[in-house]
Amino acid sequence: MNENRPTAPSPDQSFGIRPGEIAADLPEAFDASLYFVGRIRTPWQRREECPRRGSMDGPLCRIEVDPRWRDALTGIEQYRRLLVLYWMHLSRRDLVLQSPKHRGSLMGTFALRSPVRPNPVAAAVVGLEKVEGTTLFVRGLDCVDGTALLDLKPDFAPAEKGCDEPT
Amino acid sequence: MNENRPTAPSPDQSFGIRPGEIAADLPEAFDASLYFVGRIRTPWQRREECPRRGSMDGPLCRIEVDPRWRDALTGIEQYRRLLVLYWMHLSRRDLVLQSPKHRGSLMGTFALRSPVRPNPVAAAVVGLEKVEGTTLFVRGLDCVDGTALLDLKPDFAPAEKGCDEPT
Repeated sequence: MNENRPTAPSPDQSFGIRPGEIAADLPEAFDASLYFVGRIRTPWQRREECPRRGSMDGPLCRIEVDPRWRDALTGIEQYRRLLVLYWMHLSRRDLVLQSPKHRGSLMGTFALRSPVRPNPVAAAVVGLEKVEGTTLFVRGLDCVDGTALLDLKPDFAPAEKGCDEPT
Repeated sequence: MNENRPTAPSPDQSFGIRPGEIAADLPEAFDASLYFVGRIRTPWQRREECPRRGSMDGPLCRIEVDPRWRDALTGIEQYRRLLVLYWMHLSRRDLVLQSPKHRGSLMGTFALRSPVRPNPVAAAVVGLEKVEGTTLFVRGLDCVDGTALLDLKPDFAPAEKGCDEPT
């Protein structure tokens, strides 16, 4: 057992349902499984403190990759932007219609970026400022401190948006 | 048991290692699990036929969402662009250094968009053309026919890239 292996934070399914929101019956079994490959460090200790959306002008955050995956970072410093996938462990997974606080109306889960979704995988584009060993320093995150990392990829936006190709 | 529930395609871990590539020991246990929430239909039956990257000028593909999540599509038609997360079931998960055919050099897994990664979750931005019931018609995918769907989200690119805000 690797002592450095990230462990799952304790879930909190205590969030209630607002008027009009609808929950689906979750499937009886899962179909695929994930490894946590690191941990994200941000200034926000509780979900209520997090900004609603990350900004490239936001605070410097750290992505601490598990040493097991050290070699997987080879060459990553050549990218200015990365796509970060992480696990929103605090979210219930069964809501299909939601009433987000910042909107006045009910919306489908797939029409929202809400953390509440069948698979609470978040995707954030971040600006990469520095790599030190297995730690990346980035801006653009909006998640709670301690969030589990799932993946890092170079960010290629669709060409017509102005593609950030590797150097 | 819901007959419409998508099932896992059979994995194929037979892909070899090229010279210089390095595999890590995978962790002993998984940390989180996923539901397949639908199925993606493309013109490509085998991995070798898939384009290396999807294009907004590419063929119309179908995303068939499991009827269980029908209400979660409410309001999705207002977005021109969606972020699609899907499961690349054909991929081995243990390579940390890879030698992709289209590059001459070894690169770390997290510096590549290769399907071979610890968590084979792909992220693609697609153009949404039409919604019929629980089927979405989109352009921009590059995956094999039958790929399992994990999530749909509105695509918000970072503001400085020209943000596609909802109407």
